[in-house]
Amino acid sequence: MIKVGIVGGTGYTGVELLRLLATRKDVEIVCVTSRELQGTPIANHFASLRGVTKLEFSSPDSADLNSCDVVFYATPHAVAMNTVASLLDNGVRVIDLSADFRIKDIKLWEQWYQTPHVAPDLVAEAVYGLPEVNREAIKTAKLIAVPGCYPTAIQLGFLPLLENDLVDGSRLIADAKSGVSGAGRKAVEDYLLCEASESIKAYAVTGHRHHPEICQGLKNASSDKVNLTFVPHLTPMIRGLLATLYAPVRSGTKVTIEQLQSIFEDRYASEPFVEVLPQGVLPATRDVRGSNKCEISVTYLPETNMVIVLSAEDNLVKGASGQAIHNMNLMFGLAETEGLEGVAFQL
Amino acid sequence: MIKVGIVGGTGYTGVELLRLLATRKDVEIVCVTSRELQGTPIANHFASLRGVTKLEFSSPDSADLNSCDVVFYATPHAVAMNTVASLLDNGVRVIDLSADFRIKDIKLWEQWYQTPHVAPDLVAEAVYGLPEVNREAIKTAKLIAVPGCYPTAIQLGFLPLLENDLVDGSRLIADAKSGVSGAGRKAVEDYLLCEASESIKAYAVTGHRHHPEICQGLKNASSDKVNLTFVPHLTPMIRGLLATLYAPVRSGTKVTIEQLQSIFEDRYASEPFVEVLPQGVLPATRDVRGSNKCEISVTYLPETNMVIVLSAEDNLVKGASGQAIHNMNLMFGLAETEGLEGVAFQL
Amino acid sequence: MIKVGIVGGTGYTGVELLRLLATRKDVEIVCVTSRELQGTPIANHFASLRGVTKLEFSSPDSADLNSCDVVFYATPHAVAMNTVASLLDNGVRVIDLSADFRIKDIKLWEQWYQTPHVAPDLVAEAVYGLPEVNREAIKTAKLIAVPGCYPTAIQLGFLPLLENDLVDGSRLIADAKSGVSGAGRKAVEDYLLCEASESIKAYAVTGHRHHPEICQGLKNASSDKVNLTFVPHLTPMIRGLLATLYAPVRSGTKVTIEQLQSIFEDRYASEPFVEVLPQGVLPATRDVRGSNKCEISVTYLPETNMVIVLSAEDNLVKGASGQAIHNMNLMFGLAETEGLEGVAFQL
Amino acid sequence: MIKVGIVGGTGYTGVELLRLLATRKDVEIVCVTSRELQGTPIANHFASLRGVTKLEFSSPDSADLNSCDVVFYATPHAVAMNTVASLLDNGVRVIDLSADFRIKDIKLWEQWYQTPHVAPDLVAEAVYGLPEVNREAIKTAKLIAVPGCYPTAIQLGFLPLLENDLVDGSRLIADAKSGVSGAGRKAVEDYLLCEASESIKAYAVTGHRHHPEICQGLKNASSDKVNLTFVPHLTPMIRGLLATLYAPVRSGTKVTIEQLQSIFEDRYASEPFVEVLPQGVLPATRDVRGSNKCEISVTYLPETNMVIVLSAEDNLVKGASGQAIHNMNLMFGLAETEGLEGVAFQL
Repeated sequence: MIKVGIVGGTGYTGVELLRLLATRKDVEIVCVTSRELQGTPIANHFASLRGVTKLEFSSPDSADLNSCDVVFYATPHAVAMNTVASLLDNGVRVIDLSADFRIKDIKLWEQWYQTPHVAPDLVAEAVYGLPEVNREAIKTAKLIAVPGCYPTAIQLGFLPLLENDLVDGSRLIADAKSGVSGAGRKAVEDYLLCEASESIKAYAVTGHRHHPEICQGLKNASSDKVNLTFVPHLTPMIRGLLATLYAPVRSGTKVTIEQLQSIFEDRYASEPFVEVLPQGVLPATRDVRGSNKCEISVTYLPETNMVIVLSAEDNLVKGASGQAIHNMNLMFGLAETEGLEGVAFQL
Repeated sequence: MIKVGIVGGTGYTGVELLRLLATRKDVEIVCVTSRELQGTPIANHFASLRGVTKLEFSSPDSADLNSCDVVFYATPHAVAMNTVASLLDNGVRVIDLSADFRIKDIKLWEQWYQTPHVAPDLVAEAVYGLPEVNREAIKTAKLIAVPGCYPTAIQLGFLPLLENDLVDGSRLIADAKSGVSGAGRKAVEDYLLCEASESIKAYAVTGHRHHPEICQGLKNASSDKVNLTFVPHLTPMIRGLLATLYAPVRSGTKVTIEQLQSIFEDRYASEPFVEVLPQGVLPATRDVRGSNKCEISVTYLPETNMVIVLSAEDNLVKGASGQAIHNMNLMFGLAETEGLEGVAFQL
Repeated sequence: MIKVGIVGGTGYTGVELLRLLATRKDVEIVCVTSRELQGTPIANHFASLRGVTKLEFSSPDSADLNSCDVVFYATPHAVAMNTVASLLDNGVRVIDLSADFRIKDIKLWEQWYQTPHVAPDLVAEAVYGLPEVNREAIKTAKLIAVPGCYPTAIQLGFLPLLENDLVDGSRLIADAKSGVSGAGRKAVEDYLLCEASESIKAYAVTGHRHHPEICQGLKNASSDKVNLTFVPHLTPMIRGLLATLYAPVRSGTKVTIEQLQSIFEDRYASEPFVEVLPQGVLPATRDVRGSNKCEISVTYLPETNMVIVLSAEDNLVKGASGQAIHNMNLMFGLAETEGLEGVAFQL
Repeated sequence: MIKVGIVGGTGYTGVELLRLLATRKDVEIVCVTSRELQGTPIANHFASLRGVTKLEFSSPDSADLNSCDVVFYATPHAVAMNTVASLLDNGVRVIDLSADFRIKDIKLWEQWYQTPHVAPDLVAEAVYGLPEVNREAIKTAKLIAVPGCYPTAIQLGFLPLLENDLVDGSRLIADAKSGVSGAGRKAVEDYLLCEASESIKAYAVTGHRHHPEICQGLKNASSDKVNLTFVPHLTPMIRGLLATLYAPVRSGTKVTIEQLQSIFEDRYASEPFVEVLPQGVLPATRDVRGSNKCEISVTYLPETNMVIVLSAEDNLVKGASGQAIHNMNLMFGLAETEGLEGVAFQL
């Protein structure tokens, strides 16, 4: 029985952790903290958990986090970095869904998150929790930085191309479309049904916080310089993230679609949560809704010598809470798919 | 290992059966039939099942249904009645999600479904698969008629009132709102996103096929005459069904909200899939999205001496495929909640 | 040229007034006030008005409201009542879209709105701006209380029945479904796309502020006691309101559908914005999306001796800003349909 | 009074033409044809037109199209080309919303539309109805080929860059997102609410029929070779089209955002239906919902030397029927904005 604590359990990644963990027989949820809602039954806040859990939110100060085997942080950025060290000192392993430990370059992190980092040593120690890249390191990690939703879909889409030196890494484009839940549970006008439904828009065109995280991962996979144009879009749906990736074939290199298809299939052949689609089949976000899968298709356009990769995930599952649990499974020697076998909602 | 066959697996209740059954370790899906799609991998038709099953649709003629322990019919009405008898003769138990065996009065069925019934004897034998009413009979049944989506929510909402003689059964009103998936997978203009989203409408105001089914159930629970006005509405969402039920307190009877609350809580105290909400809390369909729960609230309005019951379910789960599996669990002596523990999607 | 002022122009009824008025050649919008946004170009706040108006929001204190011929209040309740008197004294006519002057019974108003009314005399003077009832009084009114969205649809649906003594007014039920814009522009979690879409729920079952307003109107039309059960529902769409009305035929009275159809058609024969649908045709809210129409169908169910009226409107147009402009047209002797001819969006 | 005929009025562009034309006082709609629905009142088919028009659909064979001043074709491709010639011979001007006369290269057209073209002479004569490019030619044209929805948004976004030789035309990318109405009124599973809502997907990645049309227009504006990667996406909303355009700055050229902003503002300064947004402001499709506007923003990313243009329109208005009417206004010497002043729906 793995004892689990959740810090900051009132947002969308928090309730998604609970959805995926609450009925597991090998996991005991010890506490879920919330400063504002301490004492409130969790099921009063998240009606979906009525009849599922009798737990109440507890104060982050008094919660018995030190008795946990693992603590998930489902907090905004710049929260986890303040308290993770003492948990680690007590032998508690930590899986942070926020951005605090994702970017190795502290200056870069501070520039994007506009606050000094208080635990730079832990950044160095943290393992970036993308199992398709860091599986072995995750197994023994004490501190996991769970990748962001855009970074997960985009890295998984580009990696096979970069690892095989097939494309010009200095001219990559990621046009990404996310459901509104990607913005978190923020009561602001932009995300009201009346303002976000029946409309699509780009945002953060001149710079998004996930950009340095994506580039860091792509550079690690690349023998060469990486330069990425990244435009995220707010899409009128609750869940789902589709990344449309454009990668020009490297000058002097010849590719065929059969070769590309093989490269992708081989790269992810043993990955339980990445599905490379047959040639000619394209993913839709609903095909992975509620599941921990990332579905990827690769297309080659000879006229423009362009590779187009489509990468679809549920931003709250493979893009957040499901991937966090995948990390937990790896860290505790469980079957990787434990608790993550849920089939996607076709509708 | 229970061997399962599914007849007519290409619609929404079919894929929902597969979503709920495909990963069960105590169930083997032997075959899923479809005349049109025989030979097609199921996962080509339902992308959500990619990587989940390698089964192909098989012809209803050649499928090895007789080797199954249980066969689900997820067919349109007037299909199951033609072939169920031979399965039963071979000792196969049958769970029919269509309307063929729901209405005991054959003439009434024929009037509503506009075709002669070819297996009236089986109607008499069939058990109406509402576990909250017929649990014991279901356990030993050979043939189950799974209730419709509207009948499930509406009966569960009215039953405690009628069983306790509290309301005037001759003046019941059910104003029900269903997601578009309730119409099934029909490629008609009315259900296109462009025509069904951003709009609500009533339909079948002068008569809906679920009306006689609902009335049959309500009469069984009532000491008196039942007269129901039932207006269904097409609601711009994929899943979910909310029934708003109006029941005038019986003349000469006095009720209090505390008494009503107790009656509802007691009625469903041991039911795993009916959640009576605390006084003052009202259900939303998203609270049960994807789960097999029916959530019910009861309110009393002294000014009009009216009891208002709100009953919310996922029309594809508790209103169809989930309830069908609940029946299977009962028939095979399994834990009732086996494979149905999935937590609702809060978002 | 009618000089128009708008007080409180930052909400949904405000922008809808601007949508309908901004391109009129017989109207000059003099000022739109907002304390928070004074000095901000309106088109920065409402992108739909880019290129349409160069006006900025002005302070309610300094705005030249007294130079207007008419001022619309698109404010929350308990605002207009503080400043309307001085405008009226200056000869400015006022059309209030809030609830301040709708309910004649001051005590009742104070009970529902939980604040003392500071202008009870003006309540007596105000004309309830439902043109289908008060057309003549509106023409000469100085102060109009524009009906709420639910009250408009529900009154228009019940009136022909009550005026003709056909139904039992003590047993009326209104089950109403409103799009999320009915809640106004409130940045609260309940109305986020992630929480309000793909779900339907009832709210305010034990009492909604529109209830006394509706009853007041129904009583005025009725020879007898009126008792109404009213349950509003939050429906996952931006615009639209459908009221499903249940009215039992008065004991001892006989009705036919032909008679009912005639009564409805006659009642609204000369009304430019009420469309009685042919027998058997039911309205959908999308049929009136963006238009100032209320579409009504009447159905009779002999089995339960029940009349069912369906009444559909766009809650922001006929249910608010369009009706307000209809009132203005009447007050200033314009064609009633001026500026309100816009055809509904079929999709 | 301009006498108007509409051929093929049962689809989405047909009803949108009627929405925009039906209340105009300078236009008489003489006939709307439909082979399937001849004799049916149009308002029975499109409920939004109830009370707006009493016209019935007429047979395309007997309709008095020759008495019209102008006939709109709102038909699928390969229909208009069969009958346009005789109308033109009779002095009737024609505005074709289909693809029949858009592509000057007949072989290319035949390759994409998989049928021989029967009126190649008319293709040469037809004027491509993009007013921002062909205003003068449109005024005197007899036959207009109205641009497709994607081509409108994409050309308007790229043109200022190509006309000024700023970007490398051989490396253009258009990632476009369209509402479901772009697919037309097709009763196929893909466009059902249950399958198209709550999901986004790319389609036609290896080739879309609008690709050659777009390239033709871009080449006309370019001094150099044009090579475009175009990926369309099906977005879960009824209306709206957003094109995210990526154009690398031409090698050896230096640009600044101020210069780009000026170039765009100057290019469209006198265009009534193109709105260049202030620097830093990005369009959302809802900002133009229901209006004939195309809103464009330009952004420059120095790190990747990339220009990003966002171009938003309502695919049914500026992308189809509104633009068709803009052409009509030009052809008949009317004010360009006549009947197209409708303000967008903010919500």
